[in-house]
Amino acid sequence: MERVKAAIVGASGYTGQELVRRLLLHPHVELTAATSRQEEGRTLAEVYPRFAGIPGAELAFIQPDPQAIAATGATFAFLALPHGVAAEIGRALLDLGLRVIDLSADFRIHDAGVYEEFYDHAHPAPDLLAEAVYGLPEVRADDIKAARLIASPGCYPTSILLPLLPLLREKLIVPATIVANSMSGVSGAGRKADLSLLFCECNESARAYGVPKHRHLSEIEQELTIAAGEKVVISFIPHLIPVNAGIVTTTTATLADGVDPEAIGAALERAYAGEFFVRLLGKGRPADTKRVSGTNFIDIGWTHDPRTGRVILMSAEDNLGKGAGGQAIQSFNLMAGLDPTAGLQSV
Amino acid sequence: MERVKAAIVGASGYTGQELVRRLLLHPHVELTAATSRQEEGRTLAEVYPRFAGIPGAELAFIQPDPQAIAATGATFAFLALPHGVAAEIGRALLDLGLRVIDLSADFRIHDAGVYEEFYDHAHPAPDLLAEAVYGLPEVRADDIKAARLIASPGCYPTSILLPLLPLLREKLIVPATIVANSMSGVSGAGRKADLSLLFCECNESARAYGVPKHRHLSEIEQELTIAAGEKVVISFIPHLIPVNAGIVTTTTATLADGVDPEAIGAALERAYAGEFFVRLLGKGRPADTKRVSGTNFIDIGWTHDPRTGRVILMSAEDNLGKGAGGQAIQSFNLMAGLDPTAGLQSV
Amino acid sequence: MERVKAAIVGASGYTGQELVRRLLLHPHVELTAATSRQEEGRTLAEVYPRFAGIPGAELAFIQPDPQAIAATGATFAFLALPHGVAAEIGRALLDLGLRVIDLSADFRIHDAGVYEEFYDHAHPAPDLLAEAVYGLPEVRADDIKAARLIASPGCYPTSILLPLLPLLREKLIVPATIVANSMSGVSGAGRKADLSLLFCECNESARAYGVPKHRHLSEIEQELTIAAGEKVVISFIPHLIPVNAGIVTTTTATLADGVDPEAIGAALERAYAGEFFVRLLGKGRPADTKRVSGTNFIDIGWTHDPRTGRVILMSAEDNLGKGAGGQAIQSFNLMAGLDPTAGLQSV
Amino acid sequence: MERVKAAIVGASGYTGQELVRRLLLHPHVELTAATSRQEEGRTLAEVYPRFAGIPGAELAFIQPDPQAIAATGATFAFLALPHGVAAEIGRALLDLGLRVIDLSADFRIHDAGVYEEFYDHAHPAPDLLAEAVYGLPEVRADDIKAARLIASPGCYPTSILLPLLPLLREKLIVPATIVANSMSGVSGAGRKADLSLLFCECNESARAYGVPKHRHLSEIEQELTIAAGEKVVISFIPHLIPVNAGIVTTTTATLADGVDPEAIGAALERAYAGEFFVRLLGKGRPADTKRVSGTNFIDIGWTHDPRTGRVILMSAEDNLGKGAGGQAIQSFNLMAGLDPTAGLQSV
Repeated sequence: MERVKAAIVGASGYTGQELVRRLLLHPHVELTAATSRQEEGRTLAEVYPRFAGIPGAELAFIQPDPQAIAATGATFAFLALPHGVAAEIGRALLDLGLRVIDLSADFRIHDAGVYEEFYDHAHPAPDLLAEAVYGLPEVRADDIKAARLIASPGCYPTSILLPLLPLLREKLIVPATIVANSMSGVSGAGRKADLSLLFCECNESARAYGVPKHRHLSEIEQELTIAAGEKVVISFIPHLIPVNAGIVTTTTATLADGVDPEAIGAALERAYAGEFFVRLLGKGRPADTKRVSGTNFIDIGWTHDPRTGRVILMSAEDNLGKGAGGQAIQSFNLMAGLDPTAGLQSV
Repeated sequence: MERVKAAIVGASGYTGQELVRRLLLHPHVELTAATSRQEEGRTLAEVYPRFAGIPGAELAFIQPDPQAIAATGATFAFLALPHGVAAEIGRALLDLGLRVIDLSADFRIHDAGVYEEFYDHAHPAPDLLAEAVYGLPEVRADDIKAARLIASPGCYPTSILLPLLPLLREKLIVPATIVANSMSGVSGAGRKADLSLLFCECNESARAYGVPKHRHLSEIEQELTIAAGEKVVISFIPHLIPVNAGIVTTTTATLADGVDPEAIGAALERAYAGEFFVRLLGKGRPADTKRVSGTNFIDIGWTHDPRTGRVILMSAEDNLGKGAGGQAIQSFNLMAGLDPTAGLQSV
Repeated sequence: MERVKAAIVGASGYTGQELVRRLLLHPHVELTAATSRQEEGRTLAEVYPRFAGIPGAELAFIQPDPQAIAATGATFAFLALPHGVAAEIGRALLDLGLRVIDLSADFRIHDAGVYEEFYDHAHPAPDLLAEAVYGLPEVRADDIKAARLIASPGCYPTSILLPLLPLLREKLIVPATIVANSMSGVSGAGRKADLSLLFCECNESARAYGVPKHRHLSEIEQELTIAAGEKVVISFIPHLIPVNAGIVTTTTATLADGVDPEAIGAALERAYAGEFFVRLLGKGRPADTKRVSGTNFIDIGWTHDPRTGRVILMSAEDNLGKGAGGQAIQSFNLMAGLDPTAGLQSV
Repeated sequence: MERVKAAIVGASGYTGQELVRRLLLHPHVELTAATSRQEEGRTLAEVYPRFAGIPGAELAFIQPDPQAIAATGATFAFLALPHGVAAEIGRALLDLGLRVIDLSADFRIHDAGVYEEFYDHAHPAPDLLAEAVYGLPEVRADDIKAARLIASPGCYPTSILLPLLPLLREKLIVPATIVANSMSGVSGAGRKADLSLLFCECNESARAYGVPKHRHLSEIEQELTIAAGEKVVISFIPHLIPVNAGIVTTTTATLADGVDPEAIGAALERAYAGEFFVRLLGKGRPADTKRVSGTNFIDIGWTHDPRTGRVILMSAEDNLGKGAGGQAIQSFNLMAGLDPTAGLQSV
């Protein structure tokens, strides 16, 4: 089988690095381009000694020039760029005929006004919003297969949405009572020279941040609202904890009147029983980041507290895997008609 | 000034170790006894090489025999023992005339029935429950000064109660909407040979546990109920994260009808403005475990989310400090008529 | 191609877990048996939730009974057992016609007297020592291909031997001056309920241990002696550091009289230029555990200090990968006539 | 007793922060000035929320202007500045009548030529070198008491010198055979926005660096040479490991001909028996960073390997404590005629 040619635009951050790792080993992909403004001319192996020796790692970084990317023969491009920048280069690549999987927030919000409210600048390509597919493969596989432009969800949204969506669709919980607390590894903050991300600042530290209105709320509430069929507004409190990779999210919500608690487990089963990358742990079993790090799995456990009437959902994923690069490749596999698990089977 | 003679009963766990550390350096205390069933005859310095060279560290462990403890001249005893065991030895020490600061759960619950519900055995000394003072120095200083028996609060309860109590007393939040998520360092699980506490099992791991009915809910809800003047039942989800020491707690609750959000900050100021060990961070500023580790401080920040109507409280403490040994010594200082910060000024 | 049937005997420790991980994903292997005295009847996925959902993870643990293992059709057995125990079951499996890759120390020492000196008990199967091949694939590929019994080297020895062997064979350094300092992740100490391995004991800790005569010196000196053609005795100081996986070793030795320092790099190139799993970093470039964790690579850098006349060798490997399970599978691939990198390409 | 007025010049790095911590709590010191180019006008508590509430933490940072520093009444100045910068401001403060404790390398090397060789620039104040005292309190207490200018030793040198000096003075080991391997926590690299110091780059990582000619070799070899009475050149390999604070050093050297190995322990005892901050662990007992972190202790263990004839020295200290700020305050106490342990008794 001929390999699908793919490019990574913005390959020098942690998400880019995860895409490189996955695509170098992907059995049906040829990585034809990796871009970086700072690393031009150096090879993947030089910038990431971890990849030295792996076939393909001798590829040299190029500048993020759409024409040059297209000239490598790539038919797919993964964008691991800051928001705002992604939309511009994404449009150029689409115009050159590539299919685009954007890992930034740029195409995740359907409403350009909401984007501007949360990201503090006008949307750079509002005409593309209608076309972009919010790329949760377990939720929109058919749309993804046909899409030209995927807005691949962020790490927090994935860990919050997958447990909640089936419950909202089936009206098992009261939307206004949803509170999500997430704990994220430091790689989620990106690879940038910032004092607050130094080892000695993060190690032996745990803290909330970004309250009360984290940017990811925009996409989270958009998708919850679609599922619920009514406007949903939630509390979301992200925390930084000293692990390299992984997010664990605990979400509480009040069970809707008259609902049997066991309906929660049943709804999760209906939604995800056939999904390879969603592992349902069952009732009373917490999810643990250490079981999903380095993988594309999301683990979901749940329980019910009869004392308070609340459901407790517990999910864990690798923020760079199912929360970023892994999920993007999952969408890519669907788009390219490949085995859905190709390149994603590491444990 | 003559030093107050004190004993530590159960000095070989992490809480016991923290009490040893604090009391060896306490300017007004002479540590006359430290007990351990396993370490009898070895000195503090031998069991904890960290303390070698510190005056007093040549003290040898003895068996936890009440008569032997009293014979050392101790007038105060700190109990860092498992629940169930503490009550029995505590009673014996009280009968011998010592004042007792118990760090277990045994005397924290006023209602022996609630104790049995949460701890799965009948209370070993129900007649002492009426006398025991729940030892939050910022809440009950006068009772503590006069007490013969202190039930020193646990780490989770302290981090949840101190931010919430003033808000409930002033009826600023809706009690039924309280959800507390805590993240604890591994020392909170104790010093025991258990596979799940191994470095390789905890490092790069984060997970919830003990849901939905953690034992500490019994004391948390008891104290919240007293403050609110009505029965309070909450959701509490503890998590284990890979730090040695520290708890960060994020608590959400709906602002009561018609309350100005700024009343939250004002209530916290009124409650704690003169309290050395409670540091109010103000609005929008999260608490971070790294700023309180090794100290007896609790940091409290808060914010309000107009989108959801919820208040977000963020607190951080050292689970072995303000959450255990430090707070116990804070009560001891009050009981013994000492400077409230004696032995507790480390940063 | 038909899959090779293989068993893992002793699959509940960290090394066993790494073998399970690798063999479940190995494209040419069918894992037919995994044994554990404690976990009998539970599946791999139940004991290791990380593997849930992976094809093959529904295999249930059985007792380590040689007949039962052979009855699963396995033609290869990996032994991840304590020394002493491995020899006994290894012999039984050989007698039943299986080929055996032993990851314990039992067959690594050619001289039963040396074994007894270092392991404090008589060798349980001295008659098998002559047959066993010390399984360094980069050193003895031909012997490994034909072997019935492999003694797969330990993690410290691998990290020390691979850089040193070529230099001793070419007489570039003075054997009596060799000093090796290794820093190991905590998984190297095994998965056992031991207070000294608790998170809170290992985190924020670094220390030497096992000096001056660590057991692994027996195999290290045996192999160095063979390469040098003269008796070699070295200093080896292992240290425990707070990482899950990884060993970094720094070895110093005096350059032999009249040798051009550049001969060091040239000798390493000659020895390992064609070896996929040995990555030569070149002169002046240190090895870092983070680049090899989760892989079967060993990275080797070196430098020369003209002030002291010493060569400094710096190597890094994953102690569970190239230092244990990965290397064992590397030998297995040779024995079974498979692609040498099959199942070992993760980065 | 009147408090001694002291200033910290360069108080915004990790060493400066440790000096602030120690001096705020020092019973005989009033901190009158703390300087920082970037933080002018902010208080200590604002820049370091950890210190909020501690008396003295309301002090505001000023610019590092010698006149302004002197104007606060300070009679002592601690310099925690980069090399090159320290010499200039140090001279100005001396001229203004202050006594200076410099924690940079600027005054540690007696020979300006050696300084230039290792630090790549001409020495900025060579005329002061003769006067500066290399501030190892256990070695030069009398000189320190009388000194106007202390060159306080670095973290690696302290951990290497204290075990070795007595052995060289008594000619118990062969100087040319000394090899020192050190493992340092990340705080030793300073508080600067550098990608290589990010949490995700340092966590789960261990590596050598700075070989073969680390700058600290200049002061290490100078002091070893003085002790030995002959030129000493050694190998020193520093490593970075994922802990916040702490250095563990393992040093090997060949026992001199005819020396009884037990003479090693005896020499250490003679040198340090009365020294509060040097804890001799005895034969065969390794030092562990976790026992000294946060303290001013250095722990030293040793053993002898009859197989190789080598002595193995194992030392541990807090790189910010005995390796930097703690040791500087130890010298200060001597200079000011205070209790040698004042402000240094934390465990």
